[in-house]
Amino acid sequence: MTNHFRKDLDALGQNIRTIREKKGLSQESLSFKADLHRTYLSQLESGQRNPSYTTLLKLANALSVSIFELINGGIKESDIENQE
Amino acid sequence: MTNHFRKDLDALGQNIRTIREKKGLSQESLSFKADLHRTYLSQLESGQRNPSYTTLLKLANALSVSIFELINGGIKESDIENQE
Repeated sequence: MTNHFRKDLDALGQNIRTIREKKGLSQESLSFKADLHRTYLSQLESGQRNPSYTTLLKLANALSVSIFELINGGIKESDIENQE
Repeated sequence: MTNHFRKDLDALGQNIRTIREKKGLSQESLSFKADLHRTYLSQLESGQRNPSYTTLLKLANALSVSIFELINGGIKESDIENQE
């Protein structure tokens, strides 16, 4: 089942990594802030994990972004609508 | 840990129910469309479940809404920004 969403999980992981790096945080410090295991965060960033809703909320809080930005890689929906 | 997010899970469940009812779908038909067990959907709608990212994607697809609308209860981010 999760293979069907391989692309989505890869994109989500890439988004988390991009935002984390933009914020100048290491995996170590983000995993500490988000109360997640560092190995879990590393696997999540490489698309190997299917995070729960509350894990997404913890990551968004720790990165000081909205859950929407976390899922869309730091791009606000209003930015998308302006491009269409 | 999940208790900390009790309110968020309740709100998410309520959003899913509101959108489902707006679309005129029963729990039976939505759970079939989203390839989820009906009991799981019922518990999810009452805030007793912490769905994974791919489950959120399946629900959003089945309800023909974006994952953002699913999380925000059918309100587009641009609607929120206009209110602020």
